[in-house]
Amino acid sequence: MISKNKVKYLKSLQLKKIRKEHGEFLVEGAKSVLELLKSDYQVQDLFLTENFLKCYEEELAESKVSYEVCRQEELETAGSLMTNDSAIAVAKIKENLKFEIEKDEFALALDDVKDPGNMGTLLRIADWFGIRKVICSEECTDFYAPKVISATMGSFTRAKVYYCSLNEYLSTCTSPVFGATLDGENVHKVDFGKSGIILLGNESNGINKGNHQLITKFIRIPGFGGAESLNVAVAGAIICDNLRRSQEP
Amino acid sequence: MISKNKVKYLKSLQLKKIRKEHGEFLVEGAKSVLELLKSDYQVQDLFLTENFLKCYEEELAESKVSYEVCRQEELETAGSLMTNDSAIAVAKIKENLKFEIEKDEFALALDDVKDPGNMGTLLRIADWFGIRKVICSEECTDFYAPKVISATMGSFTRAKVYYCSLNEYLSTCTSPVFGATLDGENVHKVDFGKSGIILLGNESNGINKGNHQLITKFIRIPGFGGAESLNVAVAGAIICDNLRRSQEP
Repeated sequence: MISKNKVKYLKSLQLKKIRKEHGEFLVEGAKSVLELLKSDYQVQDLFLTENFLKCYEEELAESKVSYEVCRQEELETAGSLMTNDSAIAVAKIKENLKFEIEKDEFALALDDVKDPGNMGTLLRIADWFGIRKVICSEECTDFYAPKVISATMGSFTRAKVYYCSLNEYLSTCTSPVFGATLDGENVHKVDFGKSGIILLGNESNGINKGNHQLITKFIRIPGFGGAESLNVAVAGAIICDNLRRSQEP
Repeated sequence: MISKNKVKYLKSLQLKKIRKEHGEFLVEGAKSVLELLKSDYQVQDLFLTENFLKCYEEELAESKVSYEVCRQEELETAGSLMTNDSAIAVAKIKENLKFEIEKDEFALALDDVKDPGNMGTLLRIADWFGIRKVICSEECTDFYAPKVISATMGSFTRAKVYYCSLNEYLSTCTSPVFGATLDGENVHKVDFGKSGIILLGNESNGINKGNHQLITKFIRIPGFGGAESLNVAVAGAIICDNLRRSQEP
């Protein structure tokens, strides 16, 4: 059983203010919790159902994390998911550490991406394409929000996320910056080279005007129909695929 | 003002059963309603705010659709959107008509795509890449659900959607079928030719086993990281982009 006070605390972790104050965040659902247990995140609390325990006894033993068994309804009351028949964990937020982009790697930069679903999907996409580092403008939605974590489908455990003034970061960075826009060079023709930053903008307004001068190359995804734009996560995925394609022998 | 009875009716259109019974569906928000007014859909009812009226007087006059002015709160009570400061329309559902795939065109086929957001995003993606025809298995979520319509960002007006037994449709169809899976030929190397059907499967289970024998070519998107899979809409977008890229001179 989850105590009343604990339920209250778990619920409160849906708020950024409380997450920041306590330095902890929620991880919900089987896939996310299993990935968490394998990761280098520190797990503070783990609540799970009999069912989850039966299915993943080995993984639990291996992780050496202690847990409490509870009922599905308790998980659903305490967490943000409509249905959760598996587990909820509380993990420790990592320090917001600056990183450099190496000479042979790519990173994503998100400029004011507001929707938690988009942010989470972008982290899953980055992970698929082997991109670990994600630079987020301070206006981006919080990486540790339950909806972001859920949408990553476990990929949050492999992401290195750094929140900062994007303008400052890009100003001092030597890697080329590829800015996704509705005009610019056809992404199919772009030479991405060996290193760079894929810059993606806000859902409604695109990349902030103030960052345009820091873009090395504007790129676009050629369209053939009536839609005015693509969703930011979809655009990010297409660009990453073209990037990897350009590196194939 | 929207009458009490009308509010009740608009609310009820969130249910598939009621949509089917009345042959009508909801279109909400500025972008979707504006696209609706330009389309060949028959508009039955239109409610809008003073603000929307001021911004789009010309478009409204051109459409010759009669409307009633109401308050934002009324739109939000009657519709499915959390915030709606623009408009709600009721439009007539189109007949579910079979179409053929021409010798020079591509179509999407959705096998049991359940999430309304995914379905809507896929229709927007298809529209971006100039793909008009979408074949849906009977198990797919309803095209006319408010969440699907909203997620298309107006692209629903240009889509030709046909619900049927996918197995029967693909059995009698002469176009090659490209099935998106986690194995198969690297999508970067695939020759898509001039015509075909891109088959996408369910969010958890992929393409139904019973349809596998109807696939001409299994294709996969090469991955480089830790994520186990990509979201179905994201996968669809990457495949469509590769398809268009393969046709470039």
